[in-house]
Amino acid sequence: MKIHYPNGQHPQQAYHASRDLPTPHRSIYAKRGMSLEDEINHSNQYYLARHIAVIHKKPTPIQLVKVDYPKRSAAVIREAYFRRPSTTDYNGIYRGRYIDFDAKETRNRRSFPLKNFHPHQINHMRECVNQGGICFAFIKFTDLDLVYLLPATILFNYWDEADQGGRKSITLTDIQHWGFQIEYQLNPRLPYLKAVDQIIAAEHKGVYHDK
Amino acid sequence: MKIHYPNGQHPQQAYHASRDLPTPHRSIYAKRGMSLEDEINHSNQYYLARHIAVIHKKPTPIQLVKVDYPKRSAAVIREAYFRRPSTTDYNGIYRGRYIDFDAKETRNRRSFPLKNFHPHQINHMRECVNQGGICFAFIKFTDLDLVYLLPATILFNYWDEADQGGRKSITLTDIQHWGFQIEYQLNPRLPYLKAVDQIIAAEHKGVYHDK
Repeated sequence: MKIHYPNGQHPQQAYHASRDLPTPHRSIYAKRGMSLEDEINHSNQYYLARHIAVIHKKPTPIQLVKVDYPKRSAAVIREAYFRRPSTTDYNGIYRGRYIDFDAKETRNRRSFPLKNFHPHQINHMRECVNQGGICFAFIKFTDLDLVYLLPATILFNYWDEADQGGRKSITLTDIQHWGFQIEYQLNPRLPYLKAVDQIIAAEHKGVYHDK
Repeated sequence: MKIHYPNGQHPQQAYHASRDLPTPHRSIYAKRGMSLEDEINHSNQYYLARHIAVIHKKPTPIQLVKVDYPKRSAAVIREAYFRRPSTTDYNGIYRGRYIDFDAKETRNRRSFPLKNFHPHQINHMRECVNQGGICFAFIKFTDLDLVYLLPATILFNYWDEADQGGRKSITLTDIQHWGFQIEYQLNPRLPYLKAVDQIIAAEHKGVYHDK
């Protein structure tokens, strides 16, 4: 039996359709990573409030073109454009270690397309890893509601292979093998520092740096 | 003999006057810290290009109010305001250590007013120091053209004393005693990582952490 919904759409379809719309709200605050970004920010607030880690999202860089200075009030930006960040979006410190990461979402169900990363983000993470930082990517499969933390050293392998004509994506199976699944909790929403603890432990055994 | 300059001003005075004017250019890109900021960014580029350190200035946070989406072109920000950052302006990694700092300028010649810092910046640095980060402030006496790097642990002492009714500024003499003068070079303009090396060495001896 076909159900006729008031607005002619199945509620679930309507929900998905609205997520794809470039509404001002989603496009301003969000890009694709909206909900994942909120989840990470929420988790970082939790860690900060409990003195566990100090990790912040960097503001989005803006190219200013025109700014008004009304008398007796704050400067108003009248024309500006979003710029592409030259680094990853998040960094900070945890257990004395420099932490640096980015967060990406895909609606794919079987693999994560590497084109979600910009070369400068990969280069930035390479520089940080070379300095002894802990770098990784959050990868969220939105339709599956699965979140993984993939160490940057693993990501580099796939990136370099793709660069040499190899596969342009990482399969979910490979992400499940090399990454850490971050299961949702109440508080913090994404308890990802547990995975960072494992990365630190694995580093001590030379597991990731051997790759 | 009095020289009559074309615009009625001594060139040197004119130069200083123009630095104080809230022209769009200075106010947008600059605040007071304009030239010091450029000097630091320049030094960071030098360190990055030579794989010595990865330290970046964070973008200024913006509160978006209105954004237009013209067809087939980039989003245009039509109304937005500058927000106060919740952290310091610079962070990154050097020799495996998390680095975090802010940069302040004063035109005073004898002391640096503590009101140049916001409480949230001090709190942020305390959190980072507690996590094992290396935090400090660049303090530039613009009229003297002197730049100092003052370890955050020293700054906290003066901040807390001021909080308890003590002096609301740090004398230049004290900054010279506790801080590291960063002497200008050609490249990098401010070779401040030498001072960071000394902080790391002093840490190993427990000098600053004992304070």
